[in-house]
Amino acid sequence: MKVYLDNSATTAVAPEVIEAMLPFLSADFGNAQSVHSFGQSAKAAVEKGRRQVAALLNAAPAEIVFVSGGTEADNLALRGISYAHMKHGRHIITTSVEHPAVLSTCEELERSGFRVTYLPVSSSGLVNVNEVSAAITDDTILVSVMHANNETGTVQPIEEIAGVVASARAQGNSHLHLHTDAVQSTGKLPIDVKRLGIDLLSLSGHKIHAPKGVGALFVRKGVRLGRIFFGGHQERDRRPGTENVPGIVALGRAAELASANAGTGPARVRELRDYLEQQIIARCGGVRVNGDTERRVPNISNLSFRGIDGESLLIALDIRGIAVSTGSACASGSLEPSHVLTALGLSRLEVRGSLRFSLSAYTTREEIDFAVSAVEETLERLRSMSPSEAAETTSLVSEL
Amino acid sequence: MKVYLDNSATTAVAPEVIEAMLPFLSADFGNAQSVHSFGQSAKAAVEKGRRQVAALLNAAPAEIVFVSGGTEADNLALRGISYAHMKHGRHIITTSVEHPAVLSTCEELERSGFRVTYLPVSSSGLVNVNEVSAAITDDTILVSVMHANNETGTVQPIEEIAGVVASARAQGNSHLHLHTDAVQSTGKLPIDVKRLGIDLLSLSGHKIHAPKGVGALFVRKGVRLGRIFFGGHQERDRRPGTENVPGIVALGRAAELASANAGTGPARVRELRDYLEQQIIARCGGVRVNGDTERRVPNISNLSFRGIDGESLLIALDIRGIAVSTGSACASGSLEPSHVLTALGLSRLEVRGSLRFSLSAYTTREEIDFAVSAVEETLERLRSMSPSEAAETTSLVSEL
Repeated sequence: MKVYLDNSATTAVAPEVIEAMLPFLSADFGNAQSVHSFGQSAKAAVEKGRRQVAALLNAAPAEIVFVSGGTEADNLALRGISYAHMKHGRHIITTSVEHPAVLSTCEELERSGFRVTYLPVSSSGLVNVNEVSAAITDDTILVSVMHANNETGTVQPIEEIAGVVASARAQGNSHLHLHTDAVQSTGKLPIDVKRLGIDLLSLSGHKIHAPKGVGALFVRKGVRLGRIFFGGHQERDRRPGTENVPGIVALGRAAELASANAGTGPARVRELRDYLEQQIIARCGGVRVNGDTERRVPNISNLSFRGIDGESLLIALDIRGIAVSTGSACASGSLEPSHVLTALGLSRLEVRGSLRFSLSAYTTREEIDFAVSAVEETLERLRSMSPSEAAETTSLVSEL
Repeated sequence: MKVYLDNSATTAVAPEVIEAMLPFLSADFGNAQSVHSFGQSAKAAVEKGRRQVAALLNAAPAEIVFVSGGTEADNLALRGISYAHMKHGRHIITTSVEHPAVLSTCEELERSGFRVTYLPVSSSGLVNVNEVSAAITDDTILVSVMHANNETGTVQPIEEIAGVVASARAQGNSHLHLHTDAVQSTGKLPIDVKRLGIDLLSLSGHKIHAPKGVGALFVRKGVRLGRIFFGGHQERDRRPGTENVPGIVALGRAAELASANAGTGPARVRELRDYLEQQIIARCGGVRVNGDTERRVPNISNLSFRGIDGESLLIALDIRGIAVSTGSACASGSLEPSHVLTALGLSRLEVRGSLRFSLSAYTTREEIDFAVSAVEETLERLRSMSPSEAAETTSLVSEL
């Protein structure tokens, strides 16, 4: 049995999505910029995809810009706002737990003369709305706070932050914008850009059962945005390059499926995730849940296992056919401990002992039962194997 | 009958390519950065794709950077070199007939303080190697000349230009680089980056029967390149964002097919293209071939029809099921006449009367016969319809 519990890293493409995109690889392969019938058909498909993505977010189709993925969406949002509004201010506010696509872009903007405030988070990973408010100056042009964290699933108070941003705008800072990276919340939480009151929102196809290589940036009507790519006039001059027609069709269909499942899908996943978590806590000793258990996307459970090296547990589980992750795939290969868990105040050992389980709409109860048993057995074996780690465990227990 | 003769705009994905990529959408959907078996399988697929693309170019796999397409490849090449070497020089040399992805990027670099020389071309679209040589100064860090033009198919003397660049380097300009946009020549001409002596080369998947949304930049080992995207550590820190695994698998397979067909494929396409051209010239009066008929990719024929509006001919042919193009898809929607044909010295009427026919390995003789008859009949009808255009034709004949 293969059990994939790493859906925050990437998801399988839904069969309905593959079915929708296949014609645009074969018979209906036109370039959406071409005048002839092949081109018209491609263009119609792109615009249908735009309407589907817009509908998921309660946005207007013209507010959706298709890009190559979440990283490009974040780059376009942060640099696009910075370049277009730098005459009015050079200050950006973000958090210490953002995805590398936001953090690295902020570092680049710092090198280009922008000032970035990295807000800390609470021990459950939440940013303090008052601290956002206090950080805003007349020079602030952008607040970028992720909707849900990719490692812990913690959901930030975006609506309250939007209120703070709206107040600052009402007090005269007309160049202040709010961006949120919703790569991990799309399809898991209701997203209504009008109700949330945000200006820019990033999402990625391959996290919601569309393929890799496509994503979208919502840009509220009227927002001026600089470019990060130069070339043709596609996407209303916001993103040059031949439109990824099959990718956009796929993203549109995946968005449509997410809209259709919004009622019961996330609740079902939440129930399974809670069951997984409760079972592991009950059957394995020394387990700590990382992040905010109340404000959390339904599909992520990030756990620290006392006295355990997460990487060893991951590899032992992989041998049993269970795919999980330590931290984020985007940071793998790096020897640095998770910046997210570190920002939550976890000790180095707790960070090292953490694993992320992330479910999808396709996860079954049978898979969860299989995974829980495997975790229990593997933990027992790992803990019995290593006297030195047992000693470490004891010292860690007293630390906790 | 549907006859697609717009393969320079985009191509159908080859059945072998769809077959190769499908498993990476469904069962084998891992993130190439994940540690577990799903991730390892994805990583192996990406590295296989890298070897396949490298093999087509006679490059080393580590010299291939996967990107979202030709536009991103051109942006990364031009801005990557400019940002990394700006301390040593701020001068770039390119031509007036480049793709918008290069020209718009050059304009952006001019706004950022770089100086760009746009070399003119001959009436057949060729850049003069001596003029390249004369334009190089101690301040020049990049020469970017496309391999084959996307509108006319004219093939630039890249090998000779590489010789000029090598001489300048030998004389002490160690920061001078040569980039070529090979989006239209990949799979049509033999490309050997070692023999050609180039430092950077852009290619696009969807022009060689892979899907849209994936491309590659060859970066010669040792070349320092700045970044245009910020995020994770993918592609050896050169291109962040989750790898487009199915897209890369597809591009790799398409490159492999192009390598396998390199012997006879292009020769067969050339024969069909020449047949198309000869038939149209013989059966329709007042046809001029644009570009260099000797130095030309095998699949493109750009023709000016006296006294005809290309757009009207395009639409009339589309009704008969034949897809062709006026100029490039990337410039469509713009009311400006083709900058390429204008640079060749064509009159505004000749530019307006031009059509691009572009073939692929899948084009058949039967399709060409069907298209030629349709062009002949449509031309007769269009020419007989419009007395004012007939008068225009007469005046144009005396101009020619």
